[in-house]
Amino acid sequence: MKPINILEKFSYLNSYWHPHQVARVDNMQVLLARIKGEFVWHKHEKEDELFQVIKGTLYMQYRDRTEVVQEGEFIVVPKGVEHCPATAEGEEVLLLLFERKSTSHTGDIKHELTKTEYPKI
Amino acid sequence: MKPINILEKFSYLNSYWHPHQVARVDNMQVLLARIKGEFVWHKHEKEDELFQVIKGTLYMQYRDRTEVVQEGEFIVVPKGVEHCPATAEGEEVLLLLFERKSTSHTGDIKHELTKTEYPKI
Repeated sequence: MKPINILEKFSYLNSYWHPHQVARVDNMQVLLARIKGEFVWHKHEKEDELFQVIKGTLYMQYRDRTEVVQEGEFIVVPKGVEHCPATAEGEEVLLLLFERKSTSHTGDIKHELTKTEYPKI
Repeated sequence: MKPINILEKFSYLNSYWHPHQVARVDNMQVLLARIKGEFVWHKHEKEDELFQVIKGTLYMQYRDRTEVVQEGEFIVVPKGVEHCPATAEGEEVLLLLFERKSTSHTGDIKHELTKTEYPKI
């Protein structure tokens, strides 16, 4: 019930590709993630996923193309669609995600980047 | 699956207090709303509601206090909590909302501002 300042909350994030939970809305969660480089190809069989760019430029790679998502834009990756988020080389990007609480980090894939816990901040 | 530019989408909104739907994420929807003045006191018995301020300052009135939500901030109003969004006098505020598709505009209240349809843009 209190305002949450998105940029301020990023000060809690000290590593890349590790989402932190800042709020819950019914069965969904709001996550923040600091990313740099390329993630891992994966899909979520049952969940859509929204990525809003707070700072920088997100390259959302699909198997047949890449969508460029700028600051002030968001993109929804539908369930079942393989995707791999990435940034320009060496660029840090700040993301806000909306997704179900049940959504697993790397979907159908297990990877060294996979996180099973999202700290609440 | 394509990027959505939040500010650009506001050009479709020609009236106040009439949310338009820009995306769906599972059982939730992303709405944009242009607001000015004071809305109507209401609550949603079964749904939480997230308000992100894209431009301006939102005054989220609760019965016991008012929270000031600035650009770059968001606030979640939990289900069952009476609220009345407002702006400073004469100020236009741009909001992004995240809520269930089933959430009715003015909750438990019928009012001349109540909208039953949200255009998809």
